[in-house]
Amino acid sequence: MDRIKISELLGLNLPFILASKSPRRSLLLKQLGLIFTVIPSEIKETIFENTELIPEEYVTLLSEQKTEDVANRITFPAIIFGADTIVVLENRIINKPQSREEAFAMLSNLSGNTHYVYTGLCFINTYKKKKFKTFQKTAVTFRELDEKEIWAYIETGSPFDKAGGYGIQDDFGSVFVSHINGCYYNIVGLPLELFYRSLKDFLK
Amino acid sequence: MDRIKISELLGLNLPFILASKSPRRSLLLKQLGLIFTVIPSEIKETIFENTELIPEEYVTLLSEQKTEDVANRITFPAIIFGADTIVVLENRIINKPQSREEAFAMLSNLSGNTHYVYTGLCFINTYKKKKFKTFQKTAVTFRELDEKEIWAYIETGSPFDKAGGYGIQDDFGSVFVSHINGCYYNIVGLPLELFYRSLKDFLK
Repeated sequence: MDRIKISELLGLNLPFILASKSPRRSLLLKQLGLIFTVIPSEIKETIFENTELIPEEYVTLLSEQKTEDVANRITFPAIIFGADTIVVLENRIINKPQSREEAFAMLSNLSGNTHYVYTGLCFINTYKKKKFKTFQKTAVTFRELDEKEIWAYIETGSPFDKAGGYGIQDDFGSVFVSHINGCYYNIVGLPLELFYRSLKDFLK
Repeated sequence: MDRIKISELLGLNLPFILASKSPRRSLLLKQLGLIFTVIPSEIKETIFENTELIPEEYVTLLSEQKTEDVANRITFPAIIFGADTIVVLENRIINKPQSREEAFAMLSNLSGNTHYVYTGLCFINTYKKKKFKTFQKTAVTFRELDEKEIWAYIETGSPFDKAGGYGIQDDFGSVFVSHINGCYYNIVGLPLELFYRSLKDFLK
């Protein structure tokens, strides 16, 4: 979108801060034409390990803590936006694989199954002292993969920087996912429709 | 994907011909790393106007006719692949908008509603005289759009080369679609998972 047009459609007249260092989130915001500055939060995500929270509470709380962390550190009026995405299979959170073997186990578990991607979103207006948080859930179904395909994907190196070990936007991810139910962009890392709609409402 | 790797995973050892001049289909096949040649079919799609066929029959038949047209014209052993995509709202096929006004009416009709995207796929092996055809259906739900957003999108020129008047992969399309049920890539123009799985089975 044209940069002036999107600010006008959203009603945005303050600096916009992305409280995340995720390159995919930056790319998606650029796709919208949004002008923004990245100030990553310094929240340690490990404080949430072994949580009793259900997934939607977990991602919403984590996105809120990231956003508040940045809001507390800046000294000028701005809109701060933070997000957190998790992948959940059979009530367990799946992180980024740390080795080839872990990537293989992870993709084998996803094969032929449905998992869920959750993203929490939080907006803070530091000028008006306003806050809004929400989340999105998308179901993702994999077809049955064969071992050759899984190893070929691991060879590309793509699984290692991705929660769940795959990217639906890449070559292999696109032929692994047979069905989604919900928002596509949520699986990439930022549910654009919910982001846009929430921000527009928040700025009213 | 690596070009040798995908041929090996699919078991492809004949030239691959795409019977479609759609630039988006070419891009999606390139995303997979497939090596192919484009030979567009010369089928006139108007022969199907005022059809009594239901959408899945319509797209499957049209993809078959396109593929057969090219198969009949080439003189060497090859795998020919043809596809056709239609957008259906309330049992009516929606084509590409021909004017700003038509684009506005089209997007206003999609606003707040669920429509369906159908793609028919057909493969012919000219060497083995084998044929396979199938289709994919995806439900797409738009949030309620406001008039300003629709006109801003029409200004970009993006609606005019797209059946249904939108592209889920572009800036505005990504914030218009709130929910999909089925394959994402089907909405872009080629259901990659079904394509890959069908081709792999077809080449066995």
